[in-house]
Amino acid sequence: MDYRLYYSPGACSLAVHIVLEEIGAAYALQEVSVSRGENRQASYLSINPKGFVPALEIAGERRVLTELPAVLIFLARQHPQAALLPQASALDEARAVEWLAWLAGWVHGIGFAQIWRPERFSATDPAPHEALKANGRRIVHEAYTKIEQALGDRRTWALESGYCIVDPFLLVLYRWGNRIGLPMREHYPAWTAHAERMLERGAVRRAFEQEGVAIE
Amino acid sequence: MDYRLYYSPGACSLAVHIVLEEIGAAYALQEVSVSRGENRQASYLSINPKGFVPALEIAGERRVLTELPAVLIFLARQHPQAALLPQASALDEARAVEWLAWLAGWVHGIGFAQIWRPERFSATDPAPHEALKANGRRIVHEAYTKIEQALGDRRTWALESGYCIVDPFLLVLYRWGNRIGLPMREHYPAWTAHAERMLERGAVRRAFEQEGVAIE
Repeated sequence: MDYRLYYSPGACSLAVHIVLEEIGAAYALQEVSVSRGENRQASYLSINPKGFVPALEIAGERRVLTELPAVLIFLARQHPQAALLPQASALDEARAVEWLAWLAGWVHGIGFAQIWRPERFSATDPAPHEALKANGRRIVHEAYTKIEQALGDRRTWALESGYCIVDPFLLVLYRWGNRIGLPMREHYPAWTAHAERMLERGAVRRAFEQEGVAIE
Repeated sequence: MDYRLYYSPGACSLAVHIVLEEIGAAYALQEVSVSRGENRQASYLSINPKGFVPALEIAGERRVLTELPAVLIFLARQHPQAALLPQASALDEARAVEWLAWLAGWVHGIGFAQIWRPERFSATDPAPHEALKANGRRIVHEAYTKIEQALGDRRTWALESGYCIVDPFLLVLYRWGNRIGLPMREHYPAWTAHAERMLERGAVRRAFEQEGVAIE
């Protein structure tokens, strides 16, 4: 066993799960359900003090690796034969990192966090929670318009250079759009075509099935 | 001229400025003052629609490169002779990305953003702004305790493998601690020693002088 992935079904850890399937790694899954609060329990905090998923246990390594962009980049570079990062130039690779940093830091960390975790911004007073959720939806909506524009220039994947670690994360966010009730199919046709291409991949289907999640 | 850096004095773009000096790149500086709101003006939005600094213009490349982790990783990998990313293994490199993602996404994006940009979370109603600021300070304080612990194990730089692109960003955050009135010298001795080592570097001194900023 090379890796153990700490994941919550459908969370951003699903992107890592897809990548583990893409590279054909020998890995185990360990569920840490965010909806049941297992990520805040002492047993998990002793593994990842940040209390988030994903965390990746690596054979022979004492500390788990955390932070979605770091885990995805690590797997892509550790398994170059899977070609999950552009290798032609440092700039092509940096464009993948640029996508990941924006999707993780802004769309997920600022947008969805206000929708799903308003207590992260107003820990003691629930009064502003509805306003925070509305503000998060505004940010997600603007970001999704940008994603649709980017994918709408007839490219097949997030980067013109080909399929890479950004694409599984885009699929997770597409699914989250469905979860918060956005009309994904109607308003985001290029992104919907991208999601359909993703769902044709065996690695994606296996990860969805193992986590017990669907796209809608 | 290989690069043009769009920066605001003392902003997180200062980490990129230091790295440009470390690698000895041929670059120009273009100030985009965040405190004067220049990052939200049409002239800058036409260059970087996200309206943030840093943005890096690269000779021969149509679009600027954005997102601090992406810009730092790009420069380190484009200029390997400067050895600003660990090169021994994919895991060592991923530890640098893990630091960057946490510092940019959590400490800056969630912590300092609530202190300095509460309108990002409550755009129309200023009532919760004071509570957001207090919440941001709580997050920064917890994170700074973790940073001090990490640096307190007698390591010289953020990674045991040596100086890398994480260290300039840590110095920017050390300075921000001073700016929000944290007792950096008294409460964070290991981080203070790290900052002092940073300030001995010519690249750091030149970047500070060119931006007209000081550590306190």
